[in-house]
Amino acid sequence: MRELWLVGIGTGNPGHVTLEGQQALREAAVVLIPRKGTAKEDLAELRHAILRAAGAEARVLHFDMPERDPSLPYAARVDAWHDEIALRWQQALEGAPEGPVALLVWGDPGLYDSTLRIAARLPEAPKLRVIPGITALQALTSAHAIPFNQINGAVQVTTGRRLRDEGWPEGVGTLFVMLDGECSFQSLPPEGLHIWWGGFLGMPEQILDQGPLAEAAPRIVAARAEARARHGWIMDTYLLRRD
Amino acid sequence: MRELWLVGIGTGNPGHVTLEGQQALREAAVVLIPRKGTAKEDLAELRHAILRAAGAEARVLHFDMPERDPSLPYAARVDAWHDEIALRWQQALEGAPEGPVALLVWGDPGLYDSTLRIAARLPEAPKLRVIPGITALQALTSAHAIPFNQINGAVQVTTGRRLRDEGWPEGVGTLFVMLDGECSFQSLPPEGLHIWWGGFLGMPEQILDQGPLAEAAPRIVAARAEARARHGWIMDTYLLRRD
Ligand SMILES: C[S@@+](CC[C@H](N)C(=O)[O-])C[C@H]1O[C@@H](n2cnc3c(N)ncnc32)[C@H](O)[C@@H]1O
Ligand SMILES: C[S@@+](CC[C@H](N)C(=O)[O-])C[C@H]1O[C@@H](n2cnc3c(N)ncnc32)[C@H](O)[C@@H]1O
Repeated sequence: MRELWLVGIGTGNPGHVTLEGQQALREAAVVLIPRKGTAKEDLAELRHAILRAAGAEARVLHFDMPERDPSLPYAARVDAWHDEIALRWQQALEGAPEGPVALLVWGDPGLYDSTLRIAARLPEAPKLRVIPGITALQALTSAHAIPFNQINGAVQVTTGRRLRDEGWPEGVGTLFVMLDGECSFQSLPPEGLHIWWGGFLGMPEQILDQGPLAEAAPRIVAARAEARARHGWIMDTYLLRRD
Repeated sequence: MRELWLVGIGTGNPGHVTLEGQQALREAAVVLIPRKGTAKEDLAELRHAILRAAGAEARVLHFDMPERDPSLPYAARVDAWHDEIALRWQQALEGAPEGPVALLVWGDPGLYDSTLRIAARLPEAPKLRVIPGITALQALTSAHAIPFNQINGAVQVTTGRRLRDEGWPEGVGTLFVMLDGECSFQSLPPEGLHIWWGGFLGMPEQILDQGPLAEAAPRIVAARAEARARHGWIMDTYLLRRD
């Protein structure tokens, strides 16, 4: 049985890598790295820089990320895509050296990430080891030097789509929103809400803004569009807090 | 203006420290460490081990944690306690070398932690830098090798007290519970819930259990009581997931 190590690498700052993560990369026999489209070349380069900094001597194997099949309905499309990724891991590993295989996973391997679910589709179940990593949530709160929660308060983490569909969840003082391509904070009545936003968190391009939602929302929409046009892509996340 | 660096050190595994955290500890001029009661000597020792591993040469200054005043109502008691801690930081820093002061903060400095709020009470506002750390949430999901969230699902993070008072929050598939001295999962109707529990996460004493809540709850209550009696203290956290 192969060991498969999912190593959380944090969100773009090579300093997010933990000592445990570094050591795992040093001890792995093989590192599997996706070849991504050109827009995210920067991120492929980050992975190689992290391996160099760790002094990793593992065999680095690449696999091509498949395309999603747009003809399938959403759930089936994601299923088929995960199956195909698992297959490509397996193909890439044919003839690879014995020993633990490491995958570098963005942020923490558990948070809005499919790597664990893809690993579950491998025909021979690997022995899994998960090494936690700094998430975009922590990159956001630390960049703004703010607490994660209000004193003894509840915190919800959700997606842009859910925020648009469901509005502000009851009983919650702090709401983190990820996977939001549409600045869905615009769908909320802004009274009494404060937003802390961050793009490219932890990276040299990091941009931050914060303020009462009514004032900050148009600024953030504009800054996000501008940064996205300039870089060709953007990753951003934010938290909203009720007074 | 002093620089104050809050360095998240993770939850008991020295390998949780990030490269950024290590470098900050190396660059700090002073490290402030609380002297804790005997029950948590282990944790004081961990802090020193982390400093040694970082090759930190900072001046290490200790301060005594004050007692909370039981005669005050809750909010006033916490307020007075935070004021007193800020005062003790200031006293400990009198005559200390110039340069950045680092505090080692358990987990991530933002999550259910008062360090940021204490820093805000210093009479001369410091220049704050927050270095994110691995939280107990990530230590839990990585130890169990499970995802943080269901696919595109919402996640709530809450306290034991809120879980007892408010029950299962609407619209949420995953619920993390921290700061729970009372195994408050017992207050929920267990049908359709699965629990993943961890004590002393990341530490050599780590204990894990998981299962359908109805079956696992009594096992966890017993294991927690036993471990707590043996060590004199316990830190534990868990997540509950609806089918
Ligand atoms: C597929 S999820 C992966 C999250 C990752 N596993 C983590 O732990 O942060 C991607 C989402 O995370 C957020 N994100 C990840 N990295 C980010 C960064 N450097 N800056 C801002 N947001 C980021 C964005 O909301 C993005 O839509
Ligand atoms: C005051 S909060 C601090 C949380 C910390 N800042 C973090 O990021 O995890 C303490 C709570 O965190 C959880 N916790 C912290 N460390 C833990 C560990 N090693 N194992 C299990 N639970 C832990 C427990 O629920 C505990 O009641």
